[in-house]
Amino acid sequence: MDVKIINPFLVAAIHVLKTMASVEPIPGKPFLKKDSNALGDVSAVLGITGDARGSMALTFTESCIKAIVSNLFGTPVTEFNEEVTDAVGELANMICGDARRRLGEQGISLQASIPTIIAGKGHSITHINSGPRLAVPFQTPGGNFVVEVAFNKE
Amino acid sequence: MDVKIINPFLVAAIHVLKTMASVEPIPGKPFLKKDSNALGDVSAVLGITGDARGSMALTFTESCIKAIVSNLFGTPVTEFNEEVTDAVGELANMICGDARRRLGEQGISLQASIPTIIAGKGHSITHINSGPRLAVPFQTPGGNFVVEVAFNKE
Repeated sequence: MDVKIINPFLVAAIHVLKTMASVEPIPGKPFLKKDSNALGDVSAVLGITGDARGSMALTFTESCIKAIVSNLFGTPVTEFNEEVTDAVGELANMICGDARRRLGEQGISLQASIPTIIAGKGHSITHINSGPRLAVPFQTPGGNFVVEVAFNKE
Repeated sequence: MDVKIINPFLVAAIHVLKTMASVEPIPGKPFLKKDSNALGDVSAVLGITGDARGSMALTFTESCIKAIVSNLFGTPVTEFNEEVTDAVGELANMICGDARRRLGEQGISLQASIPTIIAGKGHSITHINSGPRLAVPFQTPGGNFVVEVAFNKE
């Protein structure tokens, strides 16, 4: 599986946050993840199967996700409750769905699991895979987040 | 999708830890997860697709996973390095694989994503799903862990 499978996930993250939450994320320099060095406070993880086996993780700082969800709800979000967790899951579903649709147009068929949301100050994420693994940091007015995509070699 | 889909994951967790790491986990009272109330220090998350869409999470206390991996390696593990992360991923792969094999014998075909490992003191896990969601706590001599399985209604 080529590293080009990763790009649609980045395009999808920008597209979904822009259309759903009126946030325009600015991508930074991608880095190959060797260590679990992208720390964050809230993550959404989605498992991927089909033509390629992998996973997608979105990792937000607390200030970043609160600002995004505040925009999404149209009202300031101050605490991280069930409603916010559900919204993070929905954003992850939409980003993964948009990326899968783009890849489907290239003849790559992927299925996605349900999202799992992890909350915990300064946690780290590591994907156990044999193929490409890429992380792209994004800046938003509310703070930073990282999109990580990893696939097995097939 | 019936709640009975969850049981093979519990049987598999006991079987894999017993055969691979000589640890005999004692299951506690299962609880339906309404909140993300199972806190832990290290989690493995696997996305599931196929006849049912869901996810499996294993959440360990730090002392518990160090004791399990020490048994697996046959040498005491004191720090949480890449080798330990890989071992946690392999255990998760084996538990999910064993459960999928058991479910396959019942005519339920599931695919699994790659494992994602989360490390961070006292993090919480929430599955965003529409169907059954169950958590079972386990005791081991080294500490406690929780197996969580969640599926969408189909």
